[in-house]
Amino acid sequence: MIDLEQVHDSIASTPSKIVLLVADGLGGLPHPDTRKSELETAHIPNLDGLAQRSACGLTTPVEIGVAPGSGPGHLALFGYNPLKYLIGRGALEALGIGAELLPGDVAARGNFCTVDDDGVLTDRRAGRIRTELSAQLCQRLDGIEIPGVQVDVLPVQDYRFVLRLRGDGLSEAVEETDPQREGLPPRPARALVPAAERTSEIVQEFVSQAGRVLSEEQPANMVLLRGWAQLPNLPDFGQVYQLNPAAIAAYPMYRGLASVANMRIIPTGMTFGDEVDTLHANWEDHDFFFIHYKPADAAGEDGDFDGKVKTLEVLDAHIPRILELEPDVLMVAGDHSTPAIMASHSWHPVPFMLHSRLTLGEGIEGFNERACAQGSIGRIPAETIMLLALSHAGKLSKYGP
Amino acid sequence: MIDLEQVHDSIASTPSKIVLLVADGLGGLPHPDTRKSELETAHIPNLDGLAQRSACGLTTPVEIGVAPGSGPGHLALFGYNPLKYLIGRGALEALGIGAELLPGDVAARGNFCTVDDDGVLTDRRAGRIRTELSAQLCQRLDGIEIPGVQVDVLPVQDYRFVLRLRGDGLSEAVEETDPQREGLPPRPARALVPAAERTSEIVQEFVSQAGRVLSEEQPANMVLLRGWAQLPNLPDFGQVYQLNPAAIAAYPMYRGLASVANMRIIPTGMTFGDEVDTLHANWEDHDFFFIHYKPADAAGEDGDFDGKVKTLEVLDAHIPRILELEPDVLMVAGDHSTPAIMASHSWHPVPFMLHSRLTLGEGIEGFNERACAQGSIGRIPAETIMLLALSHAGKLSKYGP
Repeated sequence: MIDLEQVHDSIASTPSKIVLLVADGLGGLPHPDTRKSELETAHIPNLDGLAQRSACGLTTPVEIGVAPGSGPGHLALFGYNPLKYLIGRGALEALGIGAELLPGDVAARGNFCTVDDDGVLTDRRAGRIRTELSAQLCQRLDGIEIPGVQVDVLPVQDYRFVLRLRGDGLSEAVEETDPQREGLPPRPARALVPAAERTSEIVQEFVSQAGRVLSEEQPANMVLLRGWAQLPNLPDFGQVYQLNPAAIAAYPMYRGLASVANMRIIPTGMTFGDEVDTLHANWEDHDFFFIHYKPADAAGEDGDFDGKVKTLEVLDAHIPRILELEPDVLMVAGDHSTPAIMASHSWHPVPFMLHSRLTLGEGIEGFNERACAQGSIGRIPAETIMLLALSHAGKLSKYGP
Repeated sequence: MIDLEQVHDSIASTPSKIVLLVADGLGGLPHPDTRKSELETAHIPNLDGLAQRSACGLTTPVEIGVAPGSGPGHLALFGYNPLKYLIGRGALEALGIGAELLPGDVAARGNFCTVDDDGVLTDRRAGRIRTELSAQLCQRLDGIEIPGVQVDVLPVQDYRFVLRLRGDGLSEAVEETDPQREGLPPRPARALVPAAERTSEIVQEFVSQAGRVLSEEQPANMVLLRGWAQLPNLPDFGQVYQLNPAAIAAYPMYRGLASVANMRIIPTGMTFGDEVDTLHANWEDHDFFFIHYKPADAAGEDGDFDGKVKTLEVLDAHIPRILELEPDVLMVAGDHSTPAIMASHSWHPVPFMLHSRLTLGEGIEGFNERACAQGSIGRIPAETIMLLALSHAGKLSKYGP
């Protein structure tokens, strides 16, 4: 695999424009009754027609046989080696609620929990308290002050929150305080390496102050912290690829992932129609657009086969408005498969197509798992699609004399 | 990727014979009118028939999305990692004119140029002087003597030449003297690392002597030097694969690339018919033959779609005479694609087939980009075809107990 750094010298900025459309959870599996996948069941004439004129293939998100989370799935599509650059749980949780995360910040995933008088855990989720209560408690914890560090406690949903620490010399290498089962006390946030001693002390101080703040509450009288994470040190997407990149995503998680790559985040509305409007409105200002379509994954995760079919048909209806812009390169990709029959992310290879004036045109019948397996691109690591895009857009010069 | 060194112990020399036919620039893209590629347009019954009885696939020359030069394209087919072993421009230029290049030699690509009285560059190509004049000037520069180093100046074409330095302790790590634009003086050939100080001094001495030799000339009164390169330290092809390899190529560049791998170069004529005659005449003496077909690439580079189609038909007509020899393994491969509609090398995957008595036979309709995408080999790195060849030829034993 070519290192992003190795490729940099061969890339030139040109006026050509690239669109990367990520349909989250795009790939699927056949319905047991019809033996047709969601894409094969959906009426998607625009995607099917585009596939016939494109180069098609299948992408492997992280590694053959490995189902990826949203973080690795997207980083791979952006060209980052997802095994080298991992966004830890706490950091991804922060990005998922749209919280700003700067290099050096440490984030953890927090639970409100219940402890008894001896400090022994009796409920790891504090009776799954509701978001409204949780948000109030977060506000109170947010008032905790620790010298030399900025402490922010940000509500997520139900009993979950994000703890964000900002300051110099912080480290993610501290132990999780969640013992993962009841009947034990929360564990101390011990430093895993000497450089994490100070962070460990800060976290201990936060936990004991939180215990005092919550002492009169019931059931949410304590906190558990896990998934300590700092952002990986990602090369700058725009700099490496000599692009002026923008991201259009209705969901904060995907804006967050794009911001980690240092793309410009363009505010947009909640529907894909809004996103395509945003694409049109900003077309002149950028030469690379990442545009994200969430509903396919959501329906897949719900195990809703017919629902996922519908989301794909909704996506299909927007394709002509994207093509209207005549991008030099349009890629339709997925960060992973989310087969409705599994109701979860999966490791299955993901349909992929790239359209440009330099693509073969497959003469295959459509855009789906089986047809893309016949495509001229073959099965490739997701990590390589940006090189394909750059080449097809005339931005990547040849390697070697 | 398996290291060449790692595989060595599993390889045995046997009487079986392998032919690697490289059709330069083999792959293409559809003509906009017919939607058929060069291979799909050409009448190539022999290649098509062979594909039906072979194992077919697509090769990635260097990396997905990366268009390779001739050097990386061929090294990959010979099994060398093209990102690890790069033949620099000066060295490739020397090989391209059939100049001997030994390990340790340093070669540069030279331009005759014009400077004004202040030494400022007014024409980087000296009015594109003709080869005849250039050859005379090269002969005069070839007379330059510098103690401790052998200096050779070899004409290429028009205003271009190769400077070859031979001696102990030379380094390629010197700066290019070509400032890449007019209005500036040529740059000094500064050492980029301390070990290159002596080479830097030798080059400076060459440049100042060249300036004196050419001082009365107009317009070619100075030289520019770039692409400093030494040969990479390639493992010996014959030794690694336990083969007694020979190369048959009408064009010096490809003989040069084969010689870098330490294949025996068999003199041959200028047509592919001559090359096949040479193959027949030497059949008993070697167990591996690299035979090179250039015209497909040349027509592709010229943007001549119909011309490229014809070159493929010419190649096709010679296939029976190769099959007559009953090689145990015959591979038909390309070093890269050269789609006529691009008039350049490209990154598109390259049709590949391997015929032996141990191949599946694809039942596909022919030998072209779309059909090979359906083949049982799938899309593989070009670097792996030699292992396929060795196995199919019964020379590579199983890995591990």
